[in-house]
Amino acid sequence: MDAAEFRRRGKEMVDYMANYLANIEQRPVYPDVKPGYLRSLIPTEAPLEPENYEDVIKDVERVIMPGVTHWHSPYFYAYFPTASSYPAMLADMLCGAIGGMGFTWSTASEATLMSVLAARCKAIQQVQASNPGQSEAEILPKLVAYTSEQAHSSVERASLIGGVLMKKVPTDDNYAVGGGMFKKMLEEDKAAGLIPFYLCATLGTTPSCGFDHITELGPICNKENMWMHIDAAYAGSAFICPEFRPLLNGVEFADSFNFNPHKWLLTNFDCSTMWVKKRDDIIGVFKHSDQPFYLKHEHQDYNHSSLLQNWQIPHGRRFRSLKLWFVFRMYGIQGLQAHIRKQVALAKEFESLVRADKRFEICAEVIMGLVCFRLKGSNQLTELLLKRITESREIHLVPCHLSGRFVLRFAICARTTDSRHIQQAWRHITQLTFEILQEPNH
Amino acid sequence: MDAAEFRRRGKEMVDYMANYLANIEQRPVYPDVKPGYLRSLIPTEAPLEPENYEDVIKDVERVIMPGVTHWHSPYFYAYFPTASSYPAMLADMLCGAIGGMGFTWSTASEATLMSVLAARCKAIQQVQASNPGQSEAEILPKLVAYTSEQAHSSVERASLIGGVLMKKVPTDDNYAVGGGMFKKMLEEDKAAGLIPFYLCATLGTTPSCGFDHITELGPICNKENMWMHIDAAYAGSAFICPEFRPLLNGVEFADSFNFNPHKWLLTNFDCSTMWVKKRDDIIGVFKHSDQPFYLKHEHQDYNHSSLLQNWQIPHGRRFRSLKLWFVFRMYGIQGLQAHIRKQVALAKEFESLVRADKRFEICAEVIMGLVCFRLKGSNQLTELLLKRITESREIHLVPCHLSGRFVLRFAICARTTDSRHIQQAWRHITQLTFEILQEPNH
Repeated sequence: MDAAEFRRRGKEMVDYMANYLANIEQRPVYPDVKPGYLRSLIPTEAPLEPENYEDVIKDVERVIMPGVTHWHSPYFYAYFPTASSYPAMLADMLCGAIGGMGFTWSTASEATLMSVLAARCKAIQQVQASNPGQSEAEILPKLVAYTSEQAHSSVERASLIGGVLMKKVPTDDNYAVGGGMFKKMLEEDKAAGLIPFYLCATLGTTPSCGFDHITELGPICNKENMWMHIDAAYAGSAFICPEFRPLLNGVEFADSFNFNPHKWLLTNFDCSTMWVKKRDDIIGVFKHSDQPFYLKHEHQDYNHSSLLQNWQIPHGRRFRSLKLWFVFRMYGIQGLQAHIRKQVALAKEFESLVRADKRFEICAEVIMGLVCFRLKGSNQLTELLLKRITESREIHLVPCHLSGRFVLRFAICARTTDSRHIQQAWRHITQLTFEILQEPNH
Repeated sequence: MDAAEFRRRGKEMVDYMANYLANIEQRPVYPDVKPGYLRSLIPTEAPLEPENYEDVIKDVERVIMPGVTHWHSPYFYAYFPTASSYPAMLADMLCGAIGGMGFTWSTASEATLMSVLAARCKAIQQVQASNPGQSEAEILPKLVAYTSEQAHSSVERASLIGGVLMKKVPTDDNYAVGGGMFKKMLEEDKAAGLIPFYLCATLGTTPSCGFDHITELGPICNKENMWMHIDAAYAGSAFICPEFRPLLNGVEFADSFNFNPHKWLLTNFDCSTMWVKKRDDIIGVFKHSDQPFYLKHEHQDYNHSSLLQNWQIPHGRRFRSLKLWFVFRMYGIQGLQAHIRKQVALAKEFESLVRADKRFEICAEVIMGLVCFRLKGSNQLTELLLKRITESREIHLVPCHLSGRFVLRFAICARTTDSRHIQQAWRHITQLTFEILQEPNH
């Protein structure tokens, strides 16, 4: 869908929204379907090739609306109101176009937290099963979680919220956690009386897009009865391409896995997806909590563990799957693969430009859409370059630290980024570099 | 704004969105403003009377855009991508119109969790200050939090996540927590060696819209050095009307306060607002967490506690304030007050209908937009009535339990609900009642 079609479809959608709300009284306020009704109405897989928008929008009435409880119907008197107004809808449309993050960019953080809480709950039960006398208060301070020293800061925050110790595992030359170092830490901690219970492995770290060795880490976690969570927030989208699938080998050992379609799968923020191997593990976190009376409903016994409110911190959630469904159908798997491949190719193009310039060095293997690079020499030199880049406000980059070196991260971000932007960005960077190196003190 | 204007403005907004994205390269990718730049550009208070939409949309360029980092600019190479596509935007527009909850309706739950975590952190520091030898592991099992037996289930969940004991305080005849019963529990728990540290009071409980007596509870919490959080998720919106402000007396004792504009303030889901008395308390939860290098930025020292990522569980957040800003301006305070008053009047109208029918009884004082009622006699009778209401699918209600009685909750929800809908709903309810009472076994 190009901008011209979006203009047309967007205006049709505005009319659809207005018609929906104007005629909402004609719809039954409460759906007359059973859980699972969707299964027979939609294909089991996303389409390989893009579909027509007409087919998608026709399916809204055929597939989606029969399952919708119309909260804005004047026949809806349940719970409390959920607000709605035209100005708020207009603002949200604009918010979708701006599509920025509120200060930073991850809601994988909530998935990580849920996995820590589930693992904590399971570990306490397991210790108590073999030591019936031990209280939760005695066990909790012995529990220890692990993650890479390169993991996202939200992983450490999850351990702070969950009140458990988290240790950082040093990484190898590729900024990845391997089995050897991890095993060594486990042995030491167990000898000291601690109980290792959780590992957050990362596929595609934030600083350098490093990939932890999950084929080594997974069997260790399974053997030690530890929960392995995989945070693939950014790189996870790339696994729709067969050529990147080998990086996912070892996922079969994981207890939970997360990636953010809102990062790299053409789905506007926010949309973060999480899989768990045993759904009872995740809902175990809230198992002591009573289902309050006003939430009980006719299908509650259908499949208790499928109640999504038990999978997450907030009770409510936006209807986020709608975005994914539109995107799958309008791009098709081929279209999504093409997007990933194009962006990886642009990163490779930038990498070539950097490698061809003897003043620069590449600081980590370029696997996805991220290039880590720096000026050879002191950290101060690259710091000064970043300062000039930021001051000139033509492009926006953020740095990272790799092995004590100050490094620039060049991440291919915008859907519309093209070769000419890469070339232009590189001209800009080299021009600033030229100016810096001309200055007397360099 | 009526439906006709929404059609016009919506189509203009679609063009604005398409233009914004088509011409994004012409905008500086990174804003050239200092934190706080907004303060001088916008008034200190929401307008009393509605403004013109033209003025609002003109202010998007004047006020908002200078502060936006354009994540979808092809000159943006920072962090990782945040996805965007036309299909996802179209789906989100539709999601805004449907505006339903994912299974239930509260993200006040996250605010409650943050307040529990902040209080836990503060309590541990305080105990350690007077008993330097005590470890966190020793203190945690002694901490006890309190809430009403009528509080929302998310309050109990917050204590499960935070790993602290939570006790439920019995309520009085108005289903509200008073000072006497609370004080008695505190004395018993302190005598048993526990450390009371937190109270979640509710203004407008979910079952009956009861109001805890915060003028009594607040001074007790302050004296005992306990954190008082106020959950006013639903009723909080009504405090924009002076006549409801007395219900808020005692808020000055609170450490934190939350209400959901997405419930009753014409702002589409999700939008939940939280105040804290001392911002350092709330960011203390994550104080041990390093600010990672890739998140450091030029203004980070400007005011560390204003970094919103330290106020919440997820790192990222949608640009939700945009909705509130549109709503404040397009309705004005008067328009918002009129909405609240109209819905309260509709609840009173329904209450009168129930009171005029001798077969029914009102089960809790009607203060806001919620009417709790039942058929006189056995619970089975009202349960049967609800079953028939649900089966006929004309209106949607959920029940609650009050003092062991099965009670129907009739909440005024949709923005468009009018007197004729109330009258029609009552005719429907009395028709079903008539049929039930005609049946031989009644």
